[in-house]
Amino acid sequence: MAIPSRAPGFALVRVRRAGVCNTDLELQRGYYEFRGVPGHEFSGVDVDTGKRVVGEINLSCGECESCAAGLGRHCLNRSVLGIVKHPGAFAEYLTLPKANLLPIPDEEAVFVEPLAAACEILDQTPIAAGIEVAVLGDGKLGLLIAQTLCAHEADVTVYGHHEAKLEIASRAGARVCITDDPPAAKYPFVVESTGSAAGLGQAVRMTRPRGTVILKSTVHGELSLDTAPVIVNEITLVGSRCGRFGPAIELLRQRKVDVSGMISCRFPLAEAPAAFAEAARPGVLKVILTTD
Amino acid sequence: MAIPSRAPGFALVRVRRAGVCNTDLELQRGYYEFRGVPGHEFSGVDVDTGKRVVGEINLSCGECESCAAGLGRHCLNRSVLGIVKHPGAFAEYLTLPKANLLPIPDEEAVFVEPLAAACEILDQTPIAAGIEVAVLGDGKLGLLIAQTLCAHEADVTVYGHHEAKLEIASRAGARVCITDDPPAAKYPFVVESTGSAAGLGQAVRMTRPRGTVILKSTVHGELSLDTAPVIVNEITLVGSRCGRFGPAIELLRQRKVDVSGMISCRFPLAEAPAAFAEAARPGVLKVILTTD
Repeated sequence: MAIPSRAPGFALVRVRRAGVCNTDLELQRGYYEFRGVPGHEFSGVDVDTGKRVVGEINLSCGECESCAAGLGRHCLNRSVLGIVKHPGAFAEYLTLPKANLLPIPDEEAVFVEPLAAACEILDQTPIAAGIEVAVLGDGKLGLLIAQTLCAHEADVTVYGHHEAKLEIASRAGARVCITDDPPAAKYPFVVESTGSAAGLGQAVRMTRPRGTVILKSTVHGELSLDTAPVIVNEITLVGSRCGRFGPAIELLRQRKVDVSGMISCRFPLAEAPAAFAEAARPGVLKVILTTD
Repeated sequence: MAIPSRAPGFALVRVRRAGVCNTDLELQRGYYEFRGVPGHEFSGVDVDTGKRVVGEINLSCGECESCAAGLGRHCLNRSVLGIVKHPGAFAEYLTLPKANLLPIPDEEAVFVEPLAAACEILDQTPIAAGIEVAVLGDGKLGLLIAQTLCAHEADVTVYGHHEAKLEIASRAGARVCITDDPPAAKYPFVVESTGSAAGLGQAVRMTRPRGTVILKSTVHGELSLDTAPVIVNEITLVGSRCGRFGPAIELLRQRKVDVSGMISCRFPLAEAPAAFAEAARPGVLKVILTTD
């Protein structure tokens, strides 16, 4: 593959590891009408400095109202690595503004981007220590969220379907539960990270009056939602996306979140189609693409 | 009609005025599976004291977790006047706990219940003076919300379809707008009070990143919602229902909200079916049932 050209102020990164996210699978199904190289979870080497790096994935203009407000991730003119108008990490090389790069040493760096998305919940929503939170879904993101909230000392219960995955949440201190009949109107906070269209309705049913549902699932297309219980119980729904990398790196550095058990398998970049197929199999956790 | 029996601690109220709300029309369509006498906006006379009164519509148990937290309106065992398990105001008499009654002198008292629902927005969501708010819908509730937010000195724009109705918002100090192409991603707060299933998607489109949509529309059945923009733009959706009567009465007392122009017509109680038919006609504002 040719080395991509880069604009002034941009770094060239040789990709070493790249994680396959459900968003990548959704992009294949038409989400966001993305064309080009996907991939937004990576660790690599800054070619100019030789350092191992991760990178914030939003490329912001620095000039619009959102950027002026310090919300570069909501820049009105942004492109997003491997998601919106900027080639992604499933390649030998990628480019990003130098300011987006943060140094980090290990393979676990590939988890910084999704872990930042888990940390974003705490940036948006005041969840006090000791508060009951239900996390719906024991997939990759659900497990990172459960671990993040446990590190934050919330009282976490994960609802899932796979004993082996739930064991990861359990080790972090979460209660875990496999049930077809979850409690109604119980939780002040419910995190919807099932990745399925049915998750939102279930999350609303489990939330107590005046409680909050945090929406983390990326689902292509329109959902069906009965808004009556949302209005009658005055439930707040909070859409939640990318987060700042700093808190995620700190959680990894302090070993408060364990991602080593979340890697299902590794594929060389040349076998990316097989990696996607593996990542789409039910029950598979993080699939890693490698370039060395 | 027979005078209803009442439990100890309950007042008997002779209804003088009762307003027809869109929720009453939705109840007819199957919302909430209500059977019995509808009607939850009223003014009347407390038979025991002879005083003109309005009444909070939630009958709470006083013992559950929500009641203990001071949220009687979310009582887990509640009934609701004319909506849930308690006969409503489209009758000569109704009963309510004495503690629910508040004295108020005029016909405008019939607007206290919906005006309290408008005020509830400010109880749930911090909207500072000067902040831009879009109110979608120029129906009864939209106009009360617009006037309430104008009284709160927010920077209000009402999007509607009827010049005569919008004039009411305009007199209160709101900007008004009739357009098929409202601005995208502009407002930090959007109040969805269109009463239509399409309103939610439009509200989300008009909300700027990290902004808030307040859901006020009562729509029977499930809505279709594309959650991608909610998540990508990290929008918060807040379900909002009844409010405290105190702030609403205060707005009326101080003449900060003008409801006199919002009465389309009056019908005697015996002609309630005709009143419902009139209330369901497009463009009609508040229809009042009278008993004197």
